[in-house]
Amino acid sequence: MATPFRFEELAGRPCPIAASLEVVGERWSLLVVREVSLGNHRFSEIARGTGAPRDRLAARLRALVEAGVLERRPLSESPGRAGYFLTESGRDLLPALQALLQWGNRWLADEPPVVLEHHDHRVDAEWVCRTCGEPVAASPVERVLTPAGRRLSGR
Amino acid sequence: MATPFRFEELAGRPCPIAASLEVVGERWSLLVVREVSLGNHRFSEIARGTGAPRDRLAARLRALVEAGVLERRPLSESPGRAGYFLTESGRDLLPALQALLQWGNRWLADEPPVVLEHHDHRVDAEWVCRTCGEPVAASPVERVLTPAGRRLSGR
Repeated sequence: MATPFRFEELAGRPCPIAASLEVVGERWSLLVVREVSLGNHRFSEIARGTGAPRDRLAARLRALVEAGVLERRPLSESPGRAGYFLTESGRDLLPALQALLQWGNRWLADEPPVVLEHHDHRVDAEWVCRTCGEPVAASPVERVLTPAGRRLSGR
Repeated sequence: MATPFRFEELAGRPCPIAASLEVVGERWSLLVVREVSLGNHRFSEIARGTGAPRDRLAARLRALVEAGVLERRPLSESPGRAGYFLTESGRDLLPALQALLQWGNRWLADEPPVVLEHHDHRVDAEWVCRTCGEPVAASPVERVLTPAGRRLSGR
């Protein structure tokens, strides 16, 4: 992480979801992560894939580099020029994109325009707890404020 | 779904992720879904939990009802008044919130402020394919344009 996030600056509930949206919730940010994950590392490719206006895109890319989601480094095919790459933090956003992809396919498309396949079938991913193996949606799940959450919500 | 989504109106790549963000990517929308999922159904509760300005919140709630993510119905505790509830489509956004929660906990917080627990342990969810049981992140996954996607990307 580039700079520690200040949960106490959030307008509402001190919550990691709200914090995440402060970093990647602005228009174009998650689409930038999608494009880079598809192998589009150049500014022009990212602009075309997202459809973002170039000035807005430049600002988003700067913010995502500052937030540690992307890094700029030389392109392997033309080392004199730099491109944008996902950091480990950026790659860790892919489950959020996967969730939005499934939601869009299920609720917005007559026919899914993009599907994920592996082996010989479509991926229909569900959240499973790594510890006990149970699907998270089917389990009684409790949201628990940690001491950090209690400290913050006491403000 | 309230109205079929027009993928051809997207600025960039015709993609269910971009389509989803058109519906729930605007500021406050996913936080509204979070608040309602926490059992906050009244306008005033949602305003407090999200920190959204009331006029912006009213617009977002209308849009989310139109999009079929929320529905307005009488509150069980005061049947003369209406509140906001998740539809099946709205509940299906919870995996996206879970992904953002985990990302925020991992990358933005020194100490996670909110964790999910079930049974006697914290949920550390991963995406697993329902069909073959393999973690999606560990599998070679291919994005495939369906005929719908090809039709749309041909524009």
